[in-house]
Amino acid sequence: MFRLRATIISIGNELIQGRIVNTNASYLSRRLTLLGIDVVAHIVIGDNFDDVSKALDTALMIFGSNIIITTGGLGPTYDDITSEAIARYLGEEYVINEEALREIREKYESRNMPLTPERIKMAYMPKSAKSLRNPVGIAPGFMISKDNFIIIALPGVPAEMEGIWESSVEPYLKRFSDRRIAETYIRLVGAPESTLAAYINRFVRGKNNIYVKTHPKGHETRGPINDLYIMVSTSQEIDPSEECFKICNELIDILKKNVNGLLIEGECKCNRSL
Amino acid sequence: MFRLRATIISIGNELIQGRIVNTNASYLSRRLTLLGIDVVAHIVIGDNFDDVSKALDTALMIFGSNIIITTGGLGPTYDDITSEAIARYLGEEYVINEEALREIREKYESRNMPLTPERIKMAYMPKSAKSLRNPVGIAPGFMISKDNFIIIALPGVPAEMEGIWESSVEPYLKRFSDRRIAETYIRLVGAPESTLAAYINRFVRGKNNIYVKTHPKGHETRGPINDLYIMVSTSQEIDPSEECFKICNELIDILKKNVNGLLIEGECKCNRSL
Repeated sequence: MFRLRATIISIGNELIQGRIVNTNASYLSRRLTLLGIDVVAHIVIGDNFDDVSKALDTALMIFGSNIIITTGGLGPTYDDITSEAIARYLGEEYVINEEALREIREKYESRNMPLTPERIKMAYMPKSAKSLRNPVGIAPGFMISKDNFIIIALPGVPAEMEGIWESSVEPYLKRFSDRRIAETYIRLVGAPESTLAAYINRFVRGKNNIYVKTHPKGHETRGPINDLYIMVSTSQEIDPSEECFKICNELIDILKKNVNGLLIEGECKCNRSL
Repeated sequence: MFRLRATIISIGNELIQGRIVNTNASYLSRRLTLLGIDVVAHIVIGDNFDDVSKALDTALMIFGSNIIITTGGLGPTYDDITSEAIARYLGEEYVINEEALREIREKYESRNMPLTPERIKMAYMPKSAKSLRNPVGIAPGFMISKDNFIIIALPGVPAEMEGIWESSVEPYLKRFSDRRIAETYIRLVGAPESTLAAYINRFVRGKNNIYVKTHPKGHETRGPINDLYIMVSTSQEIDPSEECFKICNELIDILKKNVNGLLIEGECKCNRSL
């Protein structure tokens, strides 16, 4: 089965300097994962041409991605260089996209604001780009399809990024994925992660369609609490929730039987994605 | 001047699947930036050997980093593979670190808990690693110094990562940096980012020691608000706060003079870092 591999490239000095947290990457990762698309890497870089080019090289050559989603750098300021950097990387002309310009002009004109060079700048895109309407703010996103990969460029402001994702990108990507996902969380109280590890390691061995992870929430030796996460992926024809429910109950039985004093909060409620 | 270039590699399927937000990378980026160390990239990958190796290659070969900080994958579970993956990448033996083992044994023995294989696993490190005591949880971090780079491996649990950072890593890295940083935020109300952009672009041109960025908080056309961030870096001998204060007031004067109806909230209060 052909597997889609996505890399998210987040562009912005404010990220690389740690002034803000990269919630965009987790939003996009979560959405892609629930679509059945494997996210293989996030790469975060500052606002400069060289690093955009290095990040694209890394995503394509090193991580073998076929979907690349960038966030940030589409605005009107001097350091918003994503569109031009992608054009240069692809060896494409960096030109005004007529659809983007129309959208931008309408938005400013409706407020009686003139089209300055900084505003027109947001309509410049690589020549082969398809503009993606921004239902929240001004700067449009864009998408470029090549033979073996696509690049989707979204703004960095979270509400705008999510707006374009929901209205244009997710509906588009959905058709390419033939996997289904279901997942569940259960809280395990009273056993250290290192005790659970032995049983979980043995249980998951050789099962490629499931992913099990303990997330320590208390303290390993003083009052241990672990949130157990189970994710199951199946092909289209199989209901992933049923599969997840079966696997979850099997694992809980093994843990109950073997781990002294283990308390289980909640039950195997597997939610199917999208 | 020799510039330190840091890359942060965050390892964990929960990150790549978007189930949690990568606050570790922003914490570390912020601390490194305030130390005067340039953070050039964050790379986030899942828990697997190949991707750790790809991320290390990217950090060293593509981004030319001399400081690499990893978070995650040091715990007792089957998918905690960071230490072994780094050992493999460096071509080093993966062995019990006696200092790490002593620390782990003490912590479990003080709770009358035996040393199981899963617990001993946390003492395995690349042969040349120096163990870093974990003042919060169990799993120690470690540091490896090579001729032209260092790798520092920290746990993924934020409190533990921060505990080791503060007690061991920051005091160690501080001595290598000869730059000082000062910064300030000022709120600009009533002008769209695209209007401010023209004046800021001209102001920053050719000034390499300053970084200016507007962060839109309102809406570009309906009630625009922008937080203006200014960061100034200087060598040891110069007070960065004075320099920052001067630059901030210069820029504010230009904006006041040129942008109609601009309201400035706050003043140029430049804080010096560390």
